[in-house]
Amino acid sequence: MKILIIGANGTIGKKLTPQLARQHDIITAGRNSGDIRMDITSEASIKAMFEQAKDIDACICIAASGPLDNFSTLTSQQLLEDFNGKLFGQVNIVLIGQHYLNNNGCFTLTSGIFADIPYKGVTGGAMTSGALHSFVLSAAIELQRGLRINVVSPGMVEDSAAAYGHLFPGLKPVSMQSLTDAYQESLNEKITGQIFRVY
Amino acid sequence: MKILIIGANGTIGKKLTPQLARQHDIITAGRNSGDIRMDITSEASIKAMFEQAKDIDACICIAASGPLDNFSTLTSQQLLEDFNGKLFGQVNIVLIGQHYLNNNGCFTLTSGIFADIPYKGVTGGAMTSGALHSFVLSAAIELQRGLRINVVSPGMVEDSAAAYGHLFPGLKPVSMQSLTDAYQESLNEKITGQIFRVY
Repeated sequence: MKILIIGANGTIGKKLTPQLARQHDIITAGRNSGDIRMDITSEASIKAMFEQAKDIDACICIAASGPLDNFSTLTSQQLLEDFNGKLFGQVNIVLIGQHYLNNNGCFTLTSGIFADIPYKGVTGGAMTSGALHSFVLSAAIELQRGLRINVVSPGMVEDSAAAYGHLFPGLKPVSMQSLTDAYQESLNEKITGQIFRVY
Repeated sequence: MKILIIGANGTIGKKLTPQLARQHDIITAGRNSGDIRMDITSEASIKAMFEQAKDIDACICIAASGPLDNFSTLTSQQLLEDFNGKLFGQVNIVLIGQHYLNNNGCFTLTSGIFADIPYKGVTGGAMTSGALHSFVLSAAIELQRGLRINVVSPGMVEDSAAAYGHLFPGLKPVSMQSLTDAYQESLNEKITGQIFRVY
């Protein structure tokens, strides 16, 4: 398989990319690194990425989480800004990429635990992930040409626990291996519309 | 209880309002009818509504569903427009209303079955409902002063089956009574962060 990995240089991407490279051809894309430089908030940049990448069988997007928020002063304008990268960026990768991936190709997106298990200060992230889950369920029955789509919903990965653990007391870190295995499993040919909850 | 019902004149509201009026004081709000005229897409209008309503113990929002969409040509701009009323409108009712409801007051929002069960042509509606579910889970642990929040996720109600049933083959209509009972149950004093799936 020829796999395009967006966010290959992030915390998860750095571990997932070499794991997949053992069996697959990998093209990496990212804002500041990778074979292709791209801006996930720009539809034109996403389109240019797919034009350049060519002949893609799978596209994995590992999008980072958004900022913390304060519920008592939160506005819909802030939520909208939160949505731009992780939600609309990933949605655009599918809406645009559906016209570029090879037949029977596969998308894997990234959501997060807060869709289902709330913590304080992450309402925007929770809504992004909840919307992504429903998007993936819908897209799985809409996509043509045998295209598939899944989403990995990570808890806090062990590699991030030192930096972020204090913000989410009681949230148990998950192993990086279980997380990268979920991305790998999402590529399997019979799986679509699945939410891989890794926590 | 003094209950503010937004959308009291819609398909569900017309049945729910008299049911609740047997035991509660009701104030109705809507775009074209009701005690208070309001535009759910305007933060200023929502604020003015709460200023006018005063002393509210519960706020129920019955928001209508959005337009159908075509996945192969769908854009994030269309999704954003879909989000404005049913998603951001309801979110703003809570973000603004949290500063107006009486202590131990209660919000009840309206999502829909497509958050969890996909049908073709309703990706925007599905994402709106999925985001609302995660919003309600988050808001339930964020709200202060004993405020509570729940959401009712209706399937296709029997009163709408004649008009919309042909669009969703195989989707069984649910009884109006089961739906209005869910809104009524959401007001119960010990319930918060609950998604009432009525289908």
